[in-house]
Amino acid sequence: MTQMDAARKGQITAQMKEVAEKENVSPEFVRAGIEEGTIVIPGNIRHSGLKPIALGKGLKTKVNANIGTSTDFPETKNELVKLDAALKAGADSLMDLSTGGDLDANRRAVISHCPVMVGTVPVYQAMIEAREKYGAVVDLTGDDLFKVIEKHIEDGVDFLTVHCGVTRNVVEILKKEGRVTDIVSRGGAFLAGWMVHHGHENPLYQHYDRLLEMCIEHDVTLSLGDGLRPGCINDASDQSQIAELVVLGELVERARRAGVQVMVEGPGHVPLNEVAANVQMQKSICKGAPFYVLGPLVTDVCPGYDHINASIGGAVAAMTGADFLCYVTPAEHLGLPTAEDVREGVMASRLAGHAADIVQNIPGAKKWDESMSTARKELNWKKQKELALDPEKFDKYRQDRNPEDNEACTMCGEYCALKIIEQYLK
Amino acid sequence: MTQMDAARKGQITAQMKEVAEKENVSPEFVRAGIEEGTIVIPGNIRHSGLKPIALGKGLKTKVNANIGTSTDFPETKNELVKLDAALKAGADSLMDLSTGGDLDANRRAVISHCPVMVGTVPVYQAMIEAREKYGAVVDLTGDDLFKVIEKHIEDGVDFLTVHCGVTRNVVEILKKEGRVTDIVSRGGAFLAGWMVHHGHENPLYQHYDRLLEMCIEHDVTLSLGDGLRPGCINDASDQSQIAELVVLGELVERARRAGVQVMVEGPGHVPLNEVAANVQMQKSICKGAPFYVLGPLVTDVCPGYDHINASIGGAVAAMTGADFLCYVTPAEHLGLPTAEDVREGVMASRLAGHAADIVQNIPGAKKWDESMSTARKELNWKKQKELALDPEKFDKYRQDRNPEDNEACTMCGEYCALKIIEQYLK
Repeated sequence: MTQMDAARKGQITAQMKEVAEKENVSPEFVRAGIEEGTIVIPGNIRHSGLKPIALGKGLKTKVNANIGTSTDFPETKNELVKLDAALKAGADSLMDLSTGGDLDANRRAVISHCPVMVGTVPVYQAMIEAREKYGAVVDLTGDDLFKVIEKHIEDGVDFLTVHCGVTRNVVEILKKEGRVTDIVSRGGAFLAGWMVHHGHENPLYQHYDRLLEMCIEHDVTLSLGDGLRPGCINDASDQSQIAELVVLGELVERARRAGVQVMVEGPGHVPLNEVAANVQMQKSICKGAPFYVLGPLVTDVCPGYDHINASIGGAVAAMTGADFLCYVTPAEHLGLPTAEDVREGVMASRLAGHAADIVQNIPGAKKWDESMSTARKELNWKKQKELALDPEKFDKYRQDRNPEDNEACTMCGEYCALKIIEQYLK
Repeated sequence: MTQMDAARKGQITAQMKEVAEKENVSPEFVRAGIEEGTIVIPGNIRHSGLKPIALGKGLKTKVNANIGTSTDFPETKNELVKLDAALKAGADSLMDLSTGGDLDANRRAVISHCPVMVGTVPVYQAMIEAREKYGAVVDLTGDDLFKVIEKHIEDGVDFLTVHCGVTRNVVEILKKEGRVTDIVSRGGAFLAGWMVHHGHENPLYQHYDRLLEMCIEHDVTLSLGDGLRPGCINDASDQSQIAELVVLGELVERARRAGVQVMVEGPGHVPLNEVAANVQMQKSICKGAPFYVLGPLVTDVCPGYDHINASIGGAVAAMTGADFLCYVTPAEHLGLPTAEDVREGVMASRLAGHAADIVQNIPGAKKWDESMSTARKELNWKKQKELALDPEKFDKYRQDRNPEDNEACTMCGEYCALKIIEQYLK
């Protein structure tokens, strides 16, 4: 029985109970959210050792970390190091976006090492295998693509990113409208190219019911990809992007009718004053489905600092209702991230998510800040370290700068405001 | 003649002309802004070699970097290294917050090395000298404080942070209201303690006219400090903070009447959904005076990542009208920053300011992003580097990750969306 089935029958599953406990909400709250489609618990029945995590309305903002090989760096072991770095930094989810080396072996290694949910984008592997098989990626058939999806499902992938909303109609709108950076999603670009080349509809849209059937058996969650997400500030919130979003809204309802858990992916590069509107539109058009955003990045000009860029957009998005933040690392737009980049990316997204959780009154969020500030006032450095988002980095800074473990810190030394107040005002 | 005098007489000064050219606005726009008090050009007539920079309405968001010795790290030469790092990273302003070593020598070295505006907080030196002179900081007299201010003015400091709004009445409100972290501003804490100890009014409030007279002679700009800025999320936007802001509003009007350029400092730690309200209140209460914010930080729990924290709050503040962002480094709450921390802090604030400039239609802001995105689509790496916020970091990432200078980057390799689209969709 899937989570959705159970929810509809009014049954509380072990997973619902477990996530409710972690989130400090009632199991019934989680069940009702799954029934109405505003909460999902991605969990493939084949992913053994999975700790269930829920995404959605009224719950803590979660963070996904992307890892994966590339043609230049095909080795699985590097990705497992990044996986560990992401988990240690507190990632709630991992996506394996591998495009180099032995893709099957890599994915299986990631799933078996990963206690949190794992997502993939099967079209990548389908493209790569089509090139090997036919000599050209564009010669892929719809059946080839569905076979890869089946393999991912059977391997235990918890959620699948599928660009079902890149329809022929949406691509026509894009061609008429024009953009500075056209399509920056690899899956979206490939499917658009495939449709133009063959003159056929996107197989993921045309055979969407087949996809839904495949998901049910293993209780796989769909993550409807935004193939036309804007790749620069100039292209944000345009006709092409919103036309695809409307299709995704329709597909959310079809998934729900079929009993498949579903979330929706979102931008991308978005000017800061349009971030809230993007979230509100998704929530309205997609009937409250959990929203999984990549960034959003609020400027195009800061390669090397895109984790900060994403945390600005991510904080505002999550404050407005986005549920799940896909991290962006400092290496974005420049190259494949290292384990250190992964850590920085996860931390930046967790920070953004927590800033939003505070103002959304997520249980426990404000209390965390109050405890930290009380420890700060008491100059209790041990407690501050325990409460820090990243206790390891906390230590590194304290030890480098304050070798003698002063009561105050070297920034203000004996002119610490907290000490002055203690002395004169109390 | 001061900038304000000239503006009131309808005269365009060389400084107005120079900043107008840099900002791509008309000199008359700058003059009118100075006349109405929504723009300031801090510039002490004794600061030789100063490149004028304007702060305020309709202009690019600017970034200040704090440097300064502490009792543990008293050496001037370290601070000059940080000064260079800040300038290289693109800081528009430097504040010397030194509290260790030879304070006069340090300040003079900073001013003579610094081609952009320099600010100080004279009360720090006054406290330190009072302890040396009397054995206790609290034995400082009002005259002692004004003598230090005079020295700073004569040395060429362009803007002075003075906590004139921490009045006895405001401290009474604070004592009644209660807070988690009381007062975290060093100047504010000291002045509050001084008032409680002596039972006298804050000399900077009581003798505000004397301060205004001192500023006029050298055309020094006042930066009205927020001594009661919230030091944690819990204390934000409380009665104490807003009571002080109301006093600052009154003091802005008195400064303008006296012909002194004035800006107002703001928080601090503020929950993300109250950042905009804080800016709107300051703009309304302080009659459009430029707003200089420290952060704001949107959570208390991320020591080691407070530059990211500040860039979230800073971006939203600047989008709502804040004009000047005081950077926060990764070392905040932990110790004195290094030159590397200074660089990271300036970059994070510049990023935030630019994200806001895009949506405020500041001349040239959107164009920068569009040029970068066009270079990105063309896979023109040389051009991308030139346009990057930090070309040096850009190079570092590209060289580390992409040793052969591939056309694509190692993230997507040959599955680059931009290349796929080029091949199939065009």
